[in-house]
Amino acid sequence: MAIAPQLLPETPADPLDLEAFRRNGHALVDWIVRYLADLSRHPVGAAVAPGEVRAELPAAAPEAPEPFSAVLADLDRVIRPGLAHWQHPGWFAWFPAMSSPASVLGELAAAGLGVQGMMWATSPALTELESHVLDWLVDLMGLPQRWKTTSAGGGVLTSGASTSTLVALIAARDHCRRRTGADVEQMTVYASGQAHSSVEKGARLAGFTRVRSLAVDQHFAATPEALTEAIKRDRLLGLVPAVVVSALGTTGTTAVDPIGEFGRVADANHLWHHVDAAYAGSAMICEEFRVHLDGIDRAHSYTFNPHKWLATNLDCSVLWVADRTPLNRAMGIEPPYLHNDASRSGHVIDYRNWDISLGRPFRALKLWFVLRAFGAEGLRGLIRRHTQWATELSERIDRHPRLHRIAPTPFALVSFAHTAGSAATLALAQAVNSSGRFLVTVSEIDGRPYLRVAIGATWTTRHDLDRLWACIQEHLATEPPTPREENPWEQ
Amino acid sequence: MAIAPQLLPETPADPLDLEAFRRNGHALVDWIVRYLADLSRHPVGAAVAPGEVRAELPAAAPEAPEPFSAVLADLDRVIRPGLAHWQHPGWFAWFPAMSSPASVLGELAAAGLGVQGMMWATSPALTELESHVLDWLVDLMGLPQRWKTTSAGGGVLTSGASTSTLVALIAARDHCRRRTGADVEQMTVYASGQAHSSVEKGARLAGFTRVRSLAVDQHFAATPEALTEAIKRDRLLGLVPAVVVSALGTTGTTAVDPIGEFGRVADANHLWHHVDAAYAGSAMICEEFRVHLDGIDRAHSYTFNPHKWLATNLDCSVLWVADRTPLNRAMGIEPPYLHNDASRSGHVIDYRNWDISLGRPFRALKLWFVLRAFGAEGLRGLIRRHTQWATELSERIDRHPRLHRIAPTPFALVSFAHTAGSAATLALAQAVNSSGRFLVTVSEIDGRPYLRVAIGATWTTRHDLDRLWACIQEHLATEPPTPREENPWEQ
Repeated sequence: MAIAPQLLPETPADPLDLEAFRRNGHALVDWIVRYLADLSRHPVGAAVAPGEVRAELPAAAPEAPEPFSAVLADLDRVIRPGLAHWQHPGWFAWFPAMSSPASVLGELAAAGLGVQGMMWATSPALTELESHVLDWLVDLMGLPQRWKTTSAGGGVLTSGASTSTLVALIAARDHCRRRTGADVEQMTVYASGQAHSSVEKGARLAGFTRVRSLAVDQHFAATPEALTEAIKRDRLLGLVPAVVVSALGTTGTTAVDPIGEFGRVADANHLWHHVDAAYAGSAMICEEFRVHLDGIDRAHSYTFNPHKWLATNLDCSVLWVADRTPLNRAMGIEPPYLHNDASRSGHVIDYRNWDISLGRPFRALKLWFVLRAFGAEGLRGLIRRHTQWATELSERIDRHPRLHRIAPTPFALVSFAHTAGSAATLALAQAVNSSGRFLVTVSEIDGRPYLRVAIGATWTTRHDLDRLWACIQEHLATEPPTPREENPWEQ
Repeated sequence: MAIAPQLLPETPADPLDLEAFRRNGHALVDWIVRYLADLSRHPVGAAVAPGEVRAELPAAAPEAPEPFSAVLADLDRVIRPGLAHWQHPGWFAWFPAMSSPASVLGELAAAGLGVQGMMWATSPALTELESHVLDWLVDLMGLPQRWKTTSAGGGVLTSGASTSTLVALIAARDHCRRRTGADVEQMTVYASGQAHSSVEKGARLAGFTRVRSLAVDQHFAATPEALTEAIKRDRLLGLVPAVVVSALGTTGTTAVDPIGEFGRVADANHLWHHVDAAYAGSAMICEEFRVHLDGIDRAHSYTFNPHKWLATNLDCSVLWVADRTPLNRAMGIEPPYLHNDASRSGHVIDYRNWDISLGRPFRALKLWFVLRAFGAEGLRGLIRRHTQWATELSERIDRHPRLHRIAPTPFALVSFAHTAGSAATLALAQAVNSSGRFLVTVSEIDGRPYLRVAIGATWTTRHDLDRLWACIQEHLATEPPTPREENPWEQ
């Protein structure tokens, strides 16, 4: 034995010394405050080449304990320079992964408690807070009362929308198998050609081999006609239409599929209707966005990520179902070492029967902390601020002769291109990102590139939007003449 | 609009005030220190009835911001009494979910940084630290060099062994489909009758409908004969044997399946061989346990959970594969909004192609903090301490005329029953758990109940084991005479 175990607590660098934990915890909180306060002094992106971070790390794990000061120093020396800073006020890339002081404290509290919520019995407060906070959100967001845990449905926190959607697809698959006797290879899944990649991935992971990509209209929303046609075609082939996924806010441009009409088609054809509101779902806390929820009461399942746009740290995704029976049937299993009186009573929720995972962290804590720190009004303020700034940026783009907004801006993502064609668009994105002060995403639709400016990082202010606009204008004012192509986005 | 957004930062309870975050962070660290220091003064389990926690919470979410002091007060008032305390020194239930000061700090740092590692490009240091630390563990645990990210295989951190096993099963399914053209309904999966429920659940989630439960020997390990027989039977039925899962430490009794022999049968029959070492895998950091790894070099995938027995907070599970190609093929997808130069170069790992999730938290940070705080020698000390105490408890049980150890104790789980039959066994468990000072799990095999004492909570000391033994002895000395049944565990 390398060291006598009983000596461990007495060694100078005792890893279980609570007073050292207190000191180190305070120091780390201070480090985080400094990190966040100084973010705008550093480039948004990481300036490292592949392998550079690893080259700074020792080839082997340490044999002996190291002091926390060495770890903290390496956060500055190795980790910070190797990160793209999602919390940077100039972060406009992909979708935001919001954090907030309250959420960080929620993560800390969850880690400190160190409990595990696979069943009600293994930590009742974890389970009940999760149910309770998700029921709060049903009311706060004007969602169907049936989705509450106190009714026929209910909500569960998962690790992300990819997981939420996969879980919904598996429940839908088993539901269809039970109803029709079909094998998964005969079943079909429908989603917009602009649906998030997690829909196709989730379908493949669940074993579906036939995922139909629906044509979109000029605003990049899938059409009910495309859905009806695709179902008809598949029925003629002897296949079994099983699931349709609506996007409430696509990743490309935050387009909204016609949820009400999709729901009617789904009902008429016995399809499971899953709604992916991963990003835009957070906006439903404001009444003015609920126009997009028309027909939601017919959906079977719905996911949105507080960890995108509701000031809550990754990972925190909500999956709601209108009826928990098919979900619990698909996810439930009863080994003898998990038997307990509470489960047998039928009066509790065992969340292991709602998700892929057995072991579950206390995710509800951070969401609870956030709801209390901001209050509902504070969260509405965040969403309204971001969408207001997106509207302002959209108006600036619309007024500029060399910029073309390629899609509506229903939330806080602004999608636009250069009118002089793809090369000019890519040069603009390159100019913005190489400034080091901002990060935007370049995506493309049908081979046509465009810029995505996703507003929603926690520390972004209107001033940052002004600076971004100044950077764009400066590039446009000084850009070298590019070979004039046709604007690929003009109809 | 309820409040003018620009006023938000000036309100007294500004949720984005970093100085308030500093104060609240320090206060919460102090709260956690007090929580951990006082744990043994409180009962291990939760003393609440279903619904009691929810009854303490307001019916609706708060409209206005609340001060952090109110949240902190509710941790004491509502949450703490409603939890079963997994970090309590008297926690011997299920398997441990270890935490440690270093790991809590790692969670705090990850939350404070708030980065997201779906791809190398979205936070290089997150990806490279994950690869690096998992490569360290390959060396520390004497695992095949091929499993390193610098070789053909590699490791990834997932949310739990249920996810790791599901991911492996999906990769195996697609691999089998590509090789044989079979549908998932024709494929078969083999695992011990004592395998963890995540194996059957994962197989079902992946779409398998034929999961074969293998007979176990007197030590509850599955036999190679049972596997060979089952494969032969399925081939005669025209089915396609696809996957075998070995348990390196079953949940019931930590039995170890014959991994080497299973590997040979798997190779001869073109099966994917997945090894579930969720709990016992942590012990491989000590050389003396590696006898159980015999034949591991033929495994296709392997999972273990640092969040069980390696002082690292939930969630943190490792999945290693010997060849990353089938895994990346099963999990990979390429939407245009994720294109980037680093991915195109082929010189980086994009972990979104290794797991179900797209968005990924910085899990490697806590594992890195733990490895540095304890050093490899400190972690070996933990494992050896726990297994030593398990051996001591086993010896006490073996010497007691009214107790019967039902299975070997290769790690730190002690499984035993009362010799006077099931009623006496249940009464003993009831006496231990109702003391409030300890929590053990009652499980059963073939209808015969037994006690599982899982040693491994972070703050457990030898003294707690002595107190547990005293509690058991006291019950046995004073137990009312029970109707004498036959000991169901005697051969």
